[in-house]
Amino acid sequence: MTEILYPPWRQRLARSLHINRSQVHAKYYQVASVCPAGRPKNRTMVFRGFLANSQSLLSVTDIRSEKVAQWQSKHKSHFEICWYFSGSREQYRLSGEVALLSHSLDLSYTQAVLGQQTKQSLLNQQWSNLSANARQAFYSSSPKAPFDENTILANPAQEQLTQGKQPEEIDIDSRQISDNFCVVIFIPDTVDYLNLKSKPQERCLYDIQDDWKERWVNP
Amino acid sequence: MTEILYPPWRQRLARSLHINRSQVHAKYYQVASVCPAGRPKNRTMVFRGFLANSQSLLSVTDIRSEKVAQWQSKHKSHFEICWYFSGSREQYRLSGEVALLSHSLDLSYTQAVLGQQTKQSLLNQQWSNLSANARQAFYSSSPKAPFDENTILANPAQEQLTQGKQPEEIDIDSRQISDNFCVVIFIPDTVDYLNLKSKPQERCLYDIQDDWKERWVNP
Repeated sequence: MTEILYPPWRQRLARSLHINRSQVHAKYYQVASVCPAGRPKNRTMVFRGFLANSQSLLSVTDIRSEKVAQWQSKHKSHFEICWYFSGSREQYRLSGEVALLSHSLDLSYTQAVLGQQTKQSLLNQQWSNLSANARQAFYSSSPKAPFDENTILANPAQEQLTQGKQPEEIDIDSRQISDNFCVVIFIPDTVDYLNLKSKPQERCLYDIQDDWKERWVNP
Repeated sequence: MTEILYPPWRQRLARSLHINRSQVHAKYYQVASVCPAGRPKNRTMVFRGFLANSQSLLSVTDIRSEKVAQWQSKHKSHFEICWYFSGSREQYRLSGEVALLSHSLDLSYTQAVLGQQTKQSLLNQQWSNLSANARQAFYSSSPKAPFDENTILANPAQEQLTQGKQPEEIDIDSRQISDNFCVVIFIPDTVDYLNLKSKPQERCLYDIQDDWKERWVNP
């Protein structure tokens, strides 16, 4: 078995996740993209772990959301994550390129991104990690479409929830991966770490070009 | 006296700020911009109130930071704030144009942005709201320059802090506004509100073109 050497920022990030593990929102980060008109876009996404044996970060989304279109347009597949840990007062800014994985979309990515994992196994793993409620959203009406209460009620799983059933009791085949389900792989090439708790405040830059060496700078 | 009618999202936001007031980090939001190479950038900033009689949001920064250069380049003065309230599980995404105010920079903005306030009064107000520690940072070495402990120690205020003085005891004339001090005015033209706590989840869009009317959509 080959030993995997992770860059120092990934170890630091794992530590921050551990320190802040009691806070649900410690797994939420803000992800910036650029829309076709060249304007910045920003939304909260949920961190769903690292891709096996790598420093790429995983989230999931609906292929009908605008960010998927933004990342699919040519030369626009960049992201910057801003991840603030309120418990430990640390900020990570991670930037790089996005790879998108889905059953239904013809998305460009190379097998090199996935390493030893297959597309199917990653989709299965991430789908099975979701709650029944979260899975159901992928079968619901399109995000940002006008809200229609009847659509919600015509949706059998939602109806059961409305009737007071617990998500785990819902009687739909939620094992089947929705065609709208999309795994987002964030492949960072630079990381900017800031510690507001230390005195003086610490800031450290990492860059894949520089073999992820730590470079301490002014905050 | 004229009565001011605020758009419904501003009242909602004021309520979220009130509900989450016990959490220091409820005043932190993530601000996205676009760098000259067309890539998204994202960082945490502190909300420092609304501009008087308006729905513009205020933050402060150092003119030596990269975001100031990004917002000064032509056609790049756009932002999107992502503001997640972990206590009430609400997200606001506010986007629009940025105006920058500083003593030393020749920054383009119109008096219309400021309303009845003058540039000087706004700079004074925001500077006086800062702690001595925060003020001191504007006199320190440039952000992102290589960290040098000697520079920190040669800095008289920092030296006093290191010697154990409390920020309020520091003996420098911190009333004088640093030339590096910059007030950032975020002027939103669209707002996207999401409530993850309500069942079903609520999402509402607001647009200045549409006179800030509420438009309920699917989450």
